[in-house]
Amino acid sequence: MSGPEWLEAGRAWAEAALARALPAEDEEPVRLHAALRHALLGGGKRLRPALVRLVTLELGGEEPAAEPPAVALELVHTYSLVHDDLPAMDDDALRRGRPTVHVAFDEATAILTGDALLTLAFEVLAADEPLRAREHARVLARAAGSRGMVGGQVLDLSLEAGGARTRDAVEGMHAKKTAALFAAACEHGAIAAGRAAVRGAAAAYGRELGLLFQAVDDLLDVTGDAATLGKTPGKDAALERATLVAALGLEGARRRAEERAAALRMRANELGSGPGTALFELGQFVLERRA
Amino acid sequence: MSGPEWLEAGRAWAEAALARALPAEDEEPVRLHAALRHALLGGGKRLRPALVRLVTLELGGEEPAAEPPAVALELVHTYSLVHDDLPAMDDDALRRGRPTVHVAFDEATAILTGDALLTLAFEVLAADEPLRAREHARVLARAAGSRGMVGGQVLDLSLEAGGARTRDAVEGMHAKKTAALFAAACEHGAIAAGRAAVRGAAAAYGRELGLLFQAVDDLLDVTGDAATLGKTPGKDAALERATLVAALGLEGARRRAEERAAALRMRANELGSGPGTALFELGQFVLERRA
Repeated sequence: MSGPEWLEAGRAWAEAALARALPAEDEEPVRLHAALRHALLGGGKRLRPALVRLVTLELGGEEPAAEPPAVALELVHTYSLVHDDLPAMDDDALRRGRPTVHVAFDEATAILTGDALLTLAFEVLAADEPLRAREHARVLARAAGSRGMVGGQVLDLSLEAGGARTRDAVEGMHAKKTAALFAAACEHGAIAAGRAAVRGAAAAYGRELGLLFQAVDDLLDVTGDAATLGKTPGKDAALERATLVAALGLEGARRRAEERAAALRMRANELGSGPGTALFELGQFVLERRA
Repeated sequence: MSGPEWLEAGRAWAEAALARALPAEDEEPVRLHAALRHALLGGGKRLRPALVRLVTLELGGEEPAAEPPAVALELVHTYSLVHDDLPAMDDDALRRGRPTVHVAFDEATAILTGDALLTLAFEVLAADEPLRAREHARVLARAAGSRGMVGGQVLDLSLEAGGARTRDAVEGMHAKKTAALFAAACEHGAIAAGRAAVRGAAAAYGRELGLLFQAVDDLLDVTGDAATLGKTPGKDAALERATLVAALGLEGARRRAEERAAALRMRANELGSGPGTALFELGQFVLERRA
């Protein structure tokens, strides 16, 4: 997904911040820290940290204030991928064209690498200014925990195991598994900008964006081509995963994504971002993404 | 380990606080929240939270201030047990006489249960007063992360895989794997009591206590009897684990534990706790424990 200027700038900014946040390669235990680097520094769109930065700037804040929550959020996202790839979960051997952590190292190291990344996220937040540090930690813990992302993973597993794949069930799972972290990204931005009054509106924008992002993800698995996507499409259908396409069919899922993009523009308006701003145009960009 | 009054009082206090901290049983996802309860509320000595409370009170603080870090620390300890018991790690089917989480539920749920417990620990801390919340989070994240407990797990695995089991190697592993959380417990107490000046001395006391505790643990695996211990002794030797007894022999390990108990009394003195106080007497109690 090559994209608008803020996304490219955010990606480069996030890469540098992430590299700084990790323990050095020669610090003991060397093998664990190598695994952390393998997991975190293997590419990725850095969409979530770029979003924290974008919302912070759009709401009048400064870039340095966005750094701790941006780094923490990407650490949480990355730990969830490491654990998700484990044999007992999705059992994936490749991630972004490179061996997953349990393949490159071993399963025990992958479990511990995820644990260390999650813990480091809260260590990074705790280095921020006290009031902000606490608010960021509260937002991130709620979004990532059993009522948020981890809860969404459990719902996903239960849908895969044969739960009823209604639209509500799939979207309820998406809301926790994907949209909770997007909502947190935007609320972090409001906190970093010192705009407590718009935290709720920012979270609502992020939630809508996350649902749109996941809907398009489900569509791309059917309509995408391997070269652009960087992974093999058709996997969701082959594994009978609980996707929006499984619930609504291809056309139904496409219409649903378009509705979400329209709703997202309204959410942008509520944040004071009209046509021409990055937050207003982001929905159309996500809708048209090919990878 | 039945023990002194503060330990019994601390255990009951911690049980009530832990039950309050967990999401309700009927909250979605129900299966995940049942697994969290299974992991957390299955007994246990509650030594770490009781220690947070004890140090808080001994340093002149109030019980309510000790609650968030005490709960958070036990959540972290419990998540580490859940992940430690997984097939890819120690592969244990029983813990405190009950099926481990991956046996009672399944492996994916056990991974996610550990993740949720760890995340909840930082959510609990983030509900505290801002300045304390940040300090507690900083202490806990450092103690639990790749430079602390998780790093110690990795060192333990590498020693089991054939690393040189010198005294320094085993104690270096113990310092991270066990003593880091004990040090955090005592530093949390100093923070909760508002005694920033003695944070370092409290952490040093906790570190020494953790090393003593682990040394006695290693001894009990050789000298303990199953009925009192509540688990089968001899497992460390059978699995050729890297213990202090493996490094020093039984007599050497016992002498080392006695040296630690003496050092712990000096640390207690440095904290202002002389003979007759719980902190001064704790070393002898740990040295004599039979379970």
